[in-house]
Formats: sequence, structure tokens, C-alpha cells
Amino acid sequence: MKTSGGDEAAKRRAGESAAEAVRDGDVVGLGTGSTAAHAIRAIGRRVDAGLDVRGVPTSFASRELARECGIPLVDLDDLFAPESSRAAGTADGDGGIDLAIDGADQVADGALIKGGGAAHAREKVVAAAADRFLVVVDPSKRADVLDRPVPVEVLASARATVARTVRAAGGEPTLRSAAHKDGPVVTDNGHLVLDCAFGAIESPEAVATTLARTPGVIEHGLFIGLADRIYVGTEDGVEVLDG
Amino acid sequence: MKTSGGDEAAKRRAGESAAEAVRDGDVVGLGTGSTAAHAIRAIGRRVDAGLDVRGVPTSFASRELARECGIPLVDLDDLFAPESSRAAGTADGDGGIDLAIDGADQVADGALIKGGGAAHAREKVVAAAADRFLVVVDPSKRADVLDRPVPVEVLASARATVARTVRAAGGEPTLRSAAHKDGPVVTDNGHLVLDCAFGAIESPEAVATTLARTPGVIEHGLFIGLADRIYVGTEDGVEVLDG
Repeated sequence: MKTSGGDEAAKRRAGESAAEAVRDGDVVGLGTGSTAAHAIRAIGRRVDAGLDVRGVPTSFASRELARECGIPLVDLDDLFAPESSRAAGTADGDGGIDLAIDGADQVADGALIKGGGAAHAREKVVAAAADRFLVVVDPSKRADVLDRPVPVEVLASARATVARTVRAAGGEPTLRSAAHKDGPVVTDNGHLVLDCAFGAIESPEAVATTLARTPGVIEHGLFIGLADRIYVGTEDGVEVLDG
Repeated sequence: MKTSGGDEAAKRRAGESAAEAVRDGDVVGLGTGSTAAHAIRAIGRRVDAGLDVRGVPTSFASRELARECGIPLVDLDDLFAPESSRAAGTADGDGGIDLAIDGADQVADGALIKGGGAAHAREKVVAAAADRFLVVVDPSKRADVLDRPVPVEVLASARATVARTVRAAGGEPTLRSAAHKDGPVVTDNGHLVLDCAFGAIESPEAVATTLARTPGVIEHGLFIGLADRIYVGTEDGVEVLDG
């Protein structure tokens, strides 16, 4: 389910445009995937030029890339522990993440499907903790209605019971297979991923509620009410939509 | 937060009484903790006497105890995979868990707090997958209103952001410390536990919804609408309540 499709130049324009929203002193959530990587590289170039930021990576991959790009990193624990909020405070003094920038596998009406890179649990933690969440995509990710399979991270021991619940809700779950190891993908958190095809999702909120309540679900890939701005790279520029 | 309080004889009466509800051919969810252990031992004695059952353990500890007691075990994957439902079918042919028996840290009006043993994620998977869920407790676990801290299993990287959400919802989170290792308890799933004190919980459903929706929460210890019967061991017998 790893989504590497889409126009690379459009991804770059989206990522670089969102990176311009970063201000001196910001704490920035660093997303996972090919479009977010363009944003990370652009932030890295601004750090080289003197920008003072700290990054919160959303995955092993984004952590590695941020290090390569010279972006200083900080833990969520340091930002949100009550005793350290003053020390870690940013310009506006709230001690949290000022903005997060991340890609999406599909966008429709401000709602997202994420999890093609199986990093959506931590991506959602960071997006929800950020004051502003900027989504960066190429035009191939836009849709009128979400209809891609929803990645659902599950406890290995619960994959069969979660699959049953997904089927009862009208979805068809498929255990995601790994490419460079035998057997299934294992997430950075140590769990499995069911890609759950619901067809056209007319009510993302209802599907999200069902999945969030299902025992054994670590996190699902529906991001609702989280995106503040959506940067869509186009052939010759960037279109910015409200989330 | 491990709850080992309560009258041992009352726990034994509750566990043994619930074990009598197991019928020949059943698949039985095997709970975690001192009261559920009495049920497992009683089922083991019935297996010695010829009862044909298969057990689904809810934790490392209940798996070990079931093995000691000679109870054959079965995986949830074998029970719920669609292609194997016929082969794994039980007497009533649904191929699932016929009943689960587990303890609780507190019971009020049919709702439970579980997770003193940090096994509540898998306990909830098994309880939700069972046709009937029997809860076994001693009288010290009964309350008019749930008011014990709610155990919440969280991704290690999200403990600070989840703690912030818990505080915003009126709770006071405490990271659970281990006793026989330095630092925090790490669950069987590899995560941390925040014990979240909300005081008297007037609306368990509202707290459960908030926790289930919070990114980084693996599972919370509120069990609502799951218990079918509650077996309370008393000084001289067992009181059985509807869930």
C-alpha cells in the first residue's frame, strides 16, 4: 500500500511551499513519505541558512532524514511534560508543536486517509498535538469522496477479531504483506496493518468512530478535523485549500 | 496498580462458580489476575475429569497458568479466520469464543475498570469477541460509582500528549512504575501505562469515548456494555448480577 505515485515536481512544490510557513523559533512536526520529505529537505536548507527550529519526527524514516538535513530534534516528552513547559516554551509560550507538515494518501473535503507508510499512529499523535497541521499532496491524491483502503494498525493477536468487525461494518480487510521480509509488514510500533477497503466512504466520521472503538485497533488512518491547510502542488504552482 | 487486595476465599468462590458455566465443547476466554486464576484452575480440574474445552488466554500469565492446568489452547486467528471457521466451529457452529471469564478492578452498574495487571487491551479483545462475558470479583470490587484510576495503555512516544488530553478531560495521569525493573511498566504489547484518576466517573461512556479517540492510546481500561454476568463471591456463597 506504500503510495509513491504522483508527480514528483508537484510533490516538491507542495512540500517546499509548506516549509515556507515555518517561522524562526518554531517546533515543527516532520511527516513521513515522499512529499513530506520535500518539506523536510526545504526546512533543512533554511536551517543551513540560519533558521532556528526544532523538529519532531513522525517515524524512523523522518527522523533519519531530519538528521541528514541537520534539523535539531526534540522529544514530545520534552515539549509536553508539565514541569518542562516553561523551559521548552516557544515564541508563543505554549510549549507544544507550532505546526506539523505531512503528506496524505487521499484528501477529500478536508478529511484524509493516511497510513500508506504505516506511520499513521505517530503521525496522528503529532498532527493532533500541533497548533496547525499543514498537509502536502500532489493532485493525484485529491478526490471527491474518500475511497482508498483505510490502513488500520492492529495488535497482532487481534487481527482476526478486528477483521470480523471491519467486515461487519462493510469493509474488506487485507493483511499488508512486507516486500523485503517474509510475512506481514510490522510497524515501527511492533504491530500489523490491515488495509480495509470500504468502497466510497460517505461518512468518514462514522467509520472512524467504529474503528476507534474496536478492541485491538492501535490507530486507523482516517484523519478528520485535523488538517488546517492543504497544499496541492500543481503543474506550475501550489493551490492552498482550507482543511 | 496491581490489585491483589480482597478476600481470597470470596475470589475462589466467584471464579469456581463461573467455571461451572463452561460446557463441553466450549471455547473459553481465560482472564488475567488472581480471581480469574481461580476460574482457570477450576476449568483445569474439569479438563482432568474429561471436559473438552479449548482456552484463549488474555495474557502471558494466563497462558502459562492454562498450560500448567492442562487446558488446550487455541489462537484467535484459528477461530475467526473466515477460511477456518468451519474447522474451528464449536457446538453452536459460530466458530468464535463461547464465553470469557475475567476479573475486574472495580464494578459499578455493569461497567468495569480493568487493567491493574496491564493486560486490558487483550482482555478487551477477548471479552468483545466472546458470546458471553462473565466477570468474577470479590465484594471489595463493587462500588456505586466507578472512581478508581483508569489504566490507559499508550505508545511510549505519546505519553506526554495523552497525559495532556487526560488533564484537559479532568483526569490526573500517573505513569505506572515497574517493581522489578527500573523505570516504567512495559506491557506485554511493548507499551506504557498511564493510570488516570478522574475521581468519581459519573459518565463512563463519555470518558471512554474521549480516551478511545485520543491519538496514541492503545486501549483504556473502561469496559462498558461488555459484561453479561457478574459473579460476586461472598462470605458464604456467590451473588450473580446481570451486567
